[in-house]
Amino acid sequence: MATMKALVYRNKGDFGLEQKPKPKTIASDDAVVKLVKTTICGTDLHILKGDVPTVQPGRILGHEGLGVVESVGSGVTAYKPGDRVIISCVTACGTCRNCRRAMPSHCSTGGWILGNTIDGTQAEFVRIPHANSSLHPVPKGVDEDALVMISDILPTALECGTLNGKVAPGSIVAIVGAGPIGLSALITAQLYSPSKVIMIDLDQNRLDVALKLGATHAVVSGPDAVKNVMEITNGEGVDSAIEAVGVAPTFELCQEIIGVGGTIANIGVHGGKADLHLEKLWDRNIAITTRLVDTVTSPMLIKLLESGKLDGKVLTTHTFKFGNIDSAYSSFAAAATNKALKVIINFD
Amino acid sequence: MATMKALVYRNKGDFGLEQKPKPKTIASDDAVVKLVKTTICGTDLHILKGDVPTVQPGRILGHEGLGVVESVGSGVTAYKPGDRVIISCVTACGTCRNCRRAMPSHCSTGGWILGNTIDGTQAEFVRIPHANSSLHPVPKGVDEDALVMISDILPTALECGTLNGKVAPGSIVAIVGAGPIGLSALITAQLYSPSKVIMIDLDQNRLDVALKLGATHAVVSGPDAVKNVMEITNGEGVDSAIEAVGVAPTFELCQEIIGVGGTIANIGVHGGKADLHLEKLWDRNIAITTRLVDTVTSPMLIKLLESGKLDGKVLTTHTFKFGNIDSAYSSFAAAATNKALKVIINFD
Amino acid sequence: MATMKALVYRNKGDFGLEQKPKPKTIASDDAVVKLVKTTICGTDLHILKGDVPTVQPGRILGHEGLGVVESVGSGVTAYKPGDRVIISCVTACGTCRNCRRAMPSHCSTGGWILGNTIDGTQAEFVRIPHANSSLHPVPKGVDEDALVMISDILPTALECGTLNGKVAPGSIVAIVGAGPIGLSALITAQLYSPSKVIMIDLDQNRLDVALKLGATHAVVSGPDAVKNVMEITNGEGVDSAIEAVGVAPTFELCQEIIGVGGTIANIGVHGGKADLHLEKLWDRNIAITTRLVDTVTSPMLIKLLESGKLDGKVLTTHTFKFGNIDSAYSSFAAAATNKALKVIINFD
Amino acid sequence: MATMKALVYRNKGDFGLEQKPKPKTIASDDAVVKLVKTTICGTDLHILKGDVPTVQPGRILGHEGLGVVESVGSGVTAYKPGDRVIISCVTACGTCRNCRRAMPSHCSTGGWILGNTIDGTQAEFVRIPHANSSLHPVPKGVDEDALVMISDILPTALECGTLNGKVAPGSIVAIVGAGPIGLSALITAQLYSPSKVIMIDLDQNRLDVALKLGATHAVVSGPDAVKNVMEITNGEGVDSAIEAVGVAPTFELCQEIIGVGGTIANIGVHGGKADLHLEKLWDRNIAITTRLVDTVTSPMLIKLLESGKLDGKVLTTHTFKFGNIDSAYSSFAAAATNKALKVIINFD
Repeated sequence: MATMKALVYRNKGDFGLEQKPKPKTIASDDAVVKLVKTTICGTDLHILKGDVPTVQPGRILGHEGLGVVESVGSGVTAYKPGDRVIISCVTACGTCRNCRRAMPSHCSTGGWILGNTIDGTQAEFVRIPHANSSLHPVPKGVDEDALVMISDILPTALECGTLNGKVAPGSIVAIVGAGPIGLSALITAQLYSPSKVIMIDLDQNRLDVALKLGATHAVVSGPDAVKNVMEITNGEGVDSAIEAVGVAPTFELCQEIIGVGGTIANIGVHGGKADLHLEKLWDRNIAITTRLVDTVTSPMLIKLLESGKLDGKVLTTHTFKFGNIDSAYSSFAAAATNKALKVIINFD
Repeated sequence: MATMKALVYRNKGDFGLEQKPKPKTIASDDAVVKLVKTTICGTDLHILKGDVPTVQPGRILGHEGLGVVESVGSGVTAYKPGDRVIISCVTACGTCRNCRRAMPSHCSTGGWILGNTIDGTQAEFVRIPHANSSLHPVPKGVDEDALVMISDILPTALECGTLNGKVAPGSIVAIVGAGPIGLSALITAQLYSPSKVIMIDLDQNRLDVALKLGATHAVVSGPDAVKNVMEITNGEGVDSAIEAVGVAPTFELCQEIIGVGGTIANIGVHGGKADLHLEKLWDRNIAITTRLVDTVTSPMLIKLLESGKLDGKVLTTHTFKFGNIDSAYSSFAAAATNKALKVIINFD
Repeated sequence: MATMKALVYRNKGDFGLEQKPKPKTIASDDAVVKLVKTTICGTDLHILKGDVPTVQPGRILGHEGLGVVESVGSGVTAYKPGDRVIISCVTACGTCRNCRRAMPSHCSTGGWILGNTIDGTQAEFVRIPHANSSLHPVPKGVDEDALVMISDILPTALECGTLNGKVAPGSIVAIVGAGPIGLSALITAQLYSPSKVIMIDLDQNRLDVALKLGATHAVVSGPDAVKNVMEITNGEGVDSAIEAVGVAPTFELCQEIIGVGGTIANIGVHGGKADLHLEKLWDRNIAITTRLVDTVTSPMLIKLLESGKLDGKVLTTHTFKFGNIDSAYSSFAAAATNKALKVIINFD
Repeated sequence: MATMKALVYRNKGDFGLEQKPKPKTIASDDAVVKLVKTTICGTDLHILKGDVPTVQPGRILGHEGLGVVESVGSGVTAYKPGDRVIISCVTACGTCRNCRRAMPSHCSTGGWILGNTIDGTQAEFVRIPHANSSLHPVPKGVDEDALVMISDILPTALECGTLNGKVAPGSIVAIVGAGPIGLSALITAQLYSPSKVIMIDLDQNRLDVALKLGATHAVVSGPDAVKNVMEITNGEGVDSAIEAVGVAPTFELCQEIIGVGGTIANIGVHGGKADLHLEKLWDRNIAITTRLVDTVTSPMLIKLLESGKLDGKVLTTHTFKFGNIDSAYSSFAAAATNKALKVIINFD
């Protein structure tokens, strides 16, 4: 039996490279993709901590990547072996009720399953179900490190943050959390020309990066954060508050800085409840949104990378070989210390 | 000095009819309106309990009504003495940033001020600031009891409930609370032809009214409510959950019955916080909205009453003379017992 | 070789039932459906006149129908033999750029191909490409004659007429042409509660039908039509003008009756150009839309038929057996004389 | 009687500076503004040719400008003497049906009246009706030449071109006409990050300016224009075609280059009809829009100038003193020769 190298989750805190059987197509609309590049997501770190119960021991991790189609089932009409493809973190059948309403995040036989309920992309090969709707062709002449950001982080930032947050020309945006996803929200927000983007974080290094990437204001988290935002906004609060951390205090901060008529767009993955101060908000004409990325904007984002209107390269700070993926994880896990954003992992 | 009869808030629990000076125009865009009909809002009951600190002793209550223009300032160009008008509960200057973005609920010199920070409509005369933008002409041939519902309850139900809730043809709607505002949400929701409207309330009488007014399902509040809604929706939850009560448990119920991609539209006036279960909702692609009515849909609603597509009359169950407004309050305060929805108070 | 009975276009004006080979699946995502019911579209009459050059002699006609899945290719995961299905007039791969942006009418390997560039549904069996995305399950307990209207006419009326025309509660709608598609526009427009729907046609019988189906006003085409519409609209013109004929004069009539801020929604199939009076319209804040149906609203329409909020049965006036399909064509071709709307053709 | 210098339209081709009575407030919501800066619009040139019959001999021209409030009527609450203001080309009562639906271009007592049916801004003083809703405060620290572009050309480009054209991140835009309004459309389109903007014009100089201002492609009008656009778009046509000339051939060019699902947004002022090729477009899912600017986006545009996200200064190429306004007209009338875009006329 053909085998391959793959990063396997063994148990809480325990993971490593192993030899695993090379995947084959099972359903007629499966494809097998040979990985060229992959990356690590904040969610992968959660999995390693044992926080994601759907991930069982033995699972190959990873839901992002770019590769070459190795083989396809008889029902795959959109791709053929040899095609260079971007793998979407969301698997979409294209047919169920939720796919038909542009919400494949909740596809009845897909959604986020890669590196979760089925084996993922941190391996030499991966099986992609519903391949027709779950891959994107790699355009020529575009940096492939940047294209890996199409798998998850750029559409997540755009869909859950910028679009859900209704960022518009001239508007005032606050982004809480200047990690990779917050910075991606910063980059995609600028596609809509807001007049001010206020970045809020504990870490001055990350705020400095944000200012280089286009933030107009940086606010250090802490007791004065609300006051500072109110000064920047002439006491009116912000039009869009994008939560990019995933804990109750940052979500509650968004409630304090949101202006009338504004929107709080949640990107963070939350493990517990937050207080919602309806006694202050019931009459404020606000909206709060949540969303798992649908990757429906990926074709748009690919065009923007192609045309140079969006620079996905700024997000990738470190590069590793797949054989050293444990170092990649170490580097990413201590991202602030290492000034790491996204790490690129190359397969030879 | 000319005086008039008016209902005055004296202190928590203490209110009654008094002789007060008849109002005059102050600013150039003021109008004085002689009341023909008024009504009582749930908010008036909150005021009497002392729950609304902006209302000071001595204030004339009321923010709804229909009347005849008595006099106008030099800047009032849209109305003249003798014109029959509907009074909007929201005062709009038409010029400030929020008015320009169709959000007069937060007008910098208006918003909800009648019967709150200035004297209101439960009086023989009322002064209406920014009259050009804060009144609507009474159309001929339409029942005037129904037109009083244009002041507040119908636009509130439509804007905060139906529109914010994105009710659409074929969608499934749940309305939590079958009081006057919940029933108004039920009526306005049907303008968009949902396939199912599930009414949830403690009171079987009110649920029976809801079924007569077009609800397709009635669910009694309690331990089985969530299970019942899930059965009605084949386990998918609802597309729109409209909160029409204003307490944490009903808002939290909405979180349990909302389907992926759905919207929780809050109408209720809340006095405290609620738990927001982000750990369950962060990836559900939902929206939560709050809003103080802007009354921007009043012209549309007036057309619908004119054309008979909307029946505002079903909301008015009791009629009183202004001299007996204390009985009107008693009847409305014990609405469930009296099977009361909205009460009409006539000045003759 | 297995054969079947099928209605074949031979040449301009020449068509009839023939024995043809029974279709088989070719591509892996094909299904073969055994027809239970089909119907005739106005477009079929155009084809018979030789007006549609993409239809070649020998083609089996028809793009509407309801049937039972007979066999499926290996890539069909959403349906299996024995499933009862509605056939969409638009074939959708679900994967190409246009399918991904909810515009399968221009699917790169689909669109309107049935009974056009490939054999259609006026036959005992039909091969359906891209079956996963081009069929809908038949819900239990819904009249199947009504469900045949989901194949084409109801989504066409809703998408090209009502939605493109931005019909909204309280708005004023004019529909030019009271044939089956105009009447379907009338039915679907009412899902959004317009205050007035003005039907315009030459034929008084059809106008009478329109008034029964909910039109509020009927205007006879002719020199006074514009004047009559202006009287009904107090000189303001209509908010939505839906063109449901397909000739220049009716399209130009729409330009004369459209109010400022209104929308002209074209449904008609046009064989030539029309004059666009930009000298009158450039500053009128109007929109003009065209569209080939995408059938993306079919799931919504099925729910509305299920819930009884929409009555698709009123559109079907005549029933024939497939063996007598030539009589069905005669009846439909002289629709006004026969007071025919849609004809249902049953396969025993 | 106080007099002032003003530019007066005498008759077709005949105009010049005259002494005219200084205006006073008439209605209670009038303001009189002392001009600081004004400019000339393409429409003014049309008026001089006698093409605009609503403009009668004796009329003071001009509908753009920035100035200082000189006096206000009793109903003006938003401005006081001494306030520095931008004058909107559209006068808005803020109260009528069209103003309430964000369409003051068709205000029942306003719209485009300045320099048209009432005296305009090419004078030392101008009376502004409905001043509360028809002026904008001048923000501190922003170049005032750029702010004059808020009166008309920037909101026209944004509303009639960019917004009506649904320009979106990644989309492909063509702008037909590289004069001041076409270049303004180019500038405002970039607020939404299209991937390609193709500028089409006869004049190579103007195309060069367009390329400097952000156009990605320049196409010379003529027999190959359609072919060139199709090559740039891989045969798919454009998503947005913005007509910025106002004659039938350019409007018809838009029909040839529009892709399926696209929008033709007309900005041009048309004096005659155009052919609309419905036989080619009926099934293309396109929209065509027209609009007189509503100036509802002026507050947003002012914020963008303030924040530096938009550079209004690039549009102003020449400066004149009011005493030399005839030279300003000569320069602007031969704009292509003089490489003129907008001319600024200073009153000092």
